[in-house]
Amino acid sequence: MTTKQLVFVGTSLIATCIFLTSRGAAAAPQQGRVVRLAELTIDPSQLVAYKTALKEEIETSVRVEPGVFTLYAVSIKDHPDQIRIFEVYRDDAAYHSHLQTPHFKKYKSLTEGMVKSLTLVETDPILLGSKSD
Amino acid sequence: MTTKQLVFVGTSLIATCIFLTSRGAAAAPQQGRVVRLAELTIDPSQLVAYKTALKEEIETSVRVEPGVFTLYAVSIKDHPDQIRIFEVYRDDAAYHSHLQTPHFKKYKSLTEGMVKSLTLVETDPILLGSKSD
Repeated sequence: MTTKQLVFVGTSLIATCIFLTSRGAAAAPQQGRVVRLAELTIDPSQLVAYKTALKEEIETSVRVEPGVFTLYAVSIKDHPDQIRIFEVYRDDAAYHSHLQTPHFKKYKSLTEGMVKSLTLVETDPILLGSKSD
Repeated sequence: MTTKQLVFVGTSLIATCIFLTSRGAAAAPQQGRVVRLAELTIDPSQLVAYKTALKEEIETSVRVEPGVFTLYAVSIKDHPDQIRIFEVYRDDAAYHSHLQTPHFKKYKSLTEGMVKSLTLVETDPILLGSKSD
């Protein structure tokens, strides 16, 4: 291999690297995304158990499901029983597939008696801006 | 450069690439994150102009501010004047720095007469699960 070829290979690898690391940013296509906001009220006496089940469900979903992009769970400050989950799925098929997974079904069955209310707010994305932290 | 050295350089570049593309996943530390949910009502007659200003502000913030990780803007389905923005900043310093940027000040001044109401919901993160799409 000549020096010229070597430089070409190196440059190509670096270019691929830059492309891959930047593709999560604003340039990624966002058509067809399913984006939802879940609003929950949890029985305060079961909050610790609820959060444990929720964290396991989120960690597993993001790790094993290619179409689950974001599950951001927070509680409202000074109202720990008020939970909000911001959810982004690749598309409708990924969302419906998520509902059928063993880990989601386990979460639903474990938390059935802990959730006092659940509102699912359907949304239309305007712009999903993010980068890796 | 020998073939052996070439293989080493190539392998190193690929390894770096894999490291960089996977670092956004669940392993990232989330201590100190500032996570907010902004709830806005926009004057329906100015919705197009508002969304243009909002998209520019989000795109610029995520691109130029190292501490702005997420600005996910959506409207509630069938209520396009109801906007929700899910915001994640690295820490309190990054959030306050964001408020002082020229692009944020421009957005605030451009949209002042378009925003009918704004509620900032402070939150405590439970788990921010995401991966690049």
